[in-house]
Amino acid sequence: MSARSFLNDKALVLTSGGQDSTTCLFWALKNFKQVSAISFYYGQKHAKEVVVAARICKKLNVDLKKIDISFLKELVHSNLFKGTPDVNKTHKLDASVPASFVPYRNLLFLTLASAWAGTIGIRHIVMGVCETDYSGYADCREVFIKSAQKTLNLAVDFKELGVIIHTPLMRLSKAREFRLAEQLGCLDFILTETLTCYNGIEKKHEWGKGCADCPACELRAKGYGEYKRKFLKKSNRI
Amino acid sequence: MSARSFLNDKALVLTSGGQDSTTCLFWALKNFKQVSAISFYYGQKHAKEVVVAARICKKLNVDLKKIDISFLKELVHSNLFKGTPDVNKTHKLDASVPASFVPYRNLLFLTLASAWAGTIGIRHIVMGVCETDYSGYADCREVFIKSAQKTLNLAVDFKELGVIIHTPLMRLSKAREFRLAEQLGCLDFILTETLTCYNGIEKKHEWGKGCADCPACELRAKGYGEYKRKFLKKSNRI
Repeated sequence: MSARSFLNDKALVLTSGGQDSTTCLFWALKNFKQVSAISFYYGQKHAKEVVVAARICKKLNVDLKKIDISFLKELVHSNLFKGTPDVNKTHKLDASVPASFVPYRNLLFLTLASAWAGTIGIRHIVMGVCETDYSGYADCREVFIKSAQKTLNLAVDFKELGVIIHTPLMRLSKAREFRLAEQLGCLDFILTETLTCYNGIEKKHEWGKGCADCPACELRAKGYGEYKRKFLKKSNRI
Repeated sequence: MSARSFLNDKALVLTSGGQDSTTCLFWALKNFKQVSAISFYYGQKHAKEVVVAARICKKLNVDLKKIDISFLKELVHSNLFKGTPDVNKTHKLDASVPASFVPYRNLLFLTLASAWAGTIGIRHIVMGVCETDYSGYADCREVFIKSAQKTLNLAVDFKELGVIIHTPLMRLSKAREFRLAEQLGCLDFILTETLTCYNGIEKKHEWGKGCADCPACELRAKGYGEYKRKFLKKSNRI
């Protein structure tokens, strides 16, 4: 969805300090008059993402609301939680789903983000989900986001409110996401400041920081390689 | 939705110790092979409802999962939270909505209940929402529940799971709900054990326990009066 008509509006960005949400932050800063952010600590192994998100928001002068929903690890299975086995496995409840999947996480995030957005008078929510290069997470698909938006707007019937969920990365491959960062003028920032790694390791690589071993790092490294081949050469040629 | 075909299945009932959810507990105990319950502490004035819910589940030999989501009061406005003004007002964000409305509460409850249900292998969720004698809460309407069920099932695509939300009270007036309790053989239990009062006051009345002054008590007292006039006399005549 184009956000060209939203330059007089405010947006709330769900942020985790990773590549996707940080690219969304820059996208929102370009397309909205004012931007706020929200991040969640849910007992994840990579709890450092909350620290990184705060650092990024401070650098970008964006207000950040932090929420602790670490009770979630008592409710659902996921190897993304601290104290659980390797994320490079399949999910305990279904072998066709990655072990890192946290059931209902994105709906929970969207519900709480909508709640906070309503309180601070924001209608536009920006989320860095993507169904192109996604990790097999059902709640990153557009069909889910559209349904969630409808449900959220049926849950509350305040006259002045109601949310619009923007997902600028939905149709982008990781390579194209790097290209978008380049176009938004934030590629260096993405490569040096963001942390997508499931293991929360901040080791530097050409494609950014991470352990280089978890599915999130693999996706990022592969995407950066593809970006370099497909887009960077073209830019240099022009 | 009839539950006649679910006698071999398990159900998870959202319970608050009030009339609605306790009637649902009895309904589920009649219609499902096994029943579990879940209750939420969210910073409500009537925190006693969590204690009452636990007492009721113990008496009915039903496992209860308790979740503390009291961070919610930092996210949304509602006069249902401890330390807020009178519930007998209109909502800070919209004068056409009661002050007691907690934005997104039911979607949050359903999301967390679905998460827990998936973990313990339950597909059927029972919730005591009602759009007939409702209090002006958008998230008690059937159109919301149907949309929420769709969204919840798009959020997770485990092969074996997926939730079905049952709302046996959806079309019932409070009077008919008392009638249902009578038919389920739990009317005395409802009148003596449950606490629906927004102020958490356990003063005894003919229609049950409460302050007799808040909107929830008014609705209950009025409903019981109507039940007596419409149904109790008929029963006596037979």
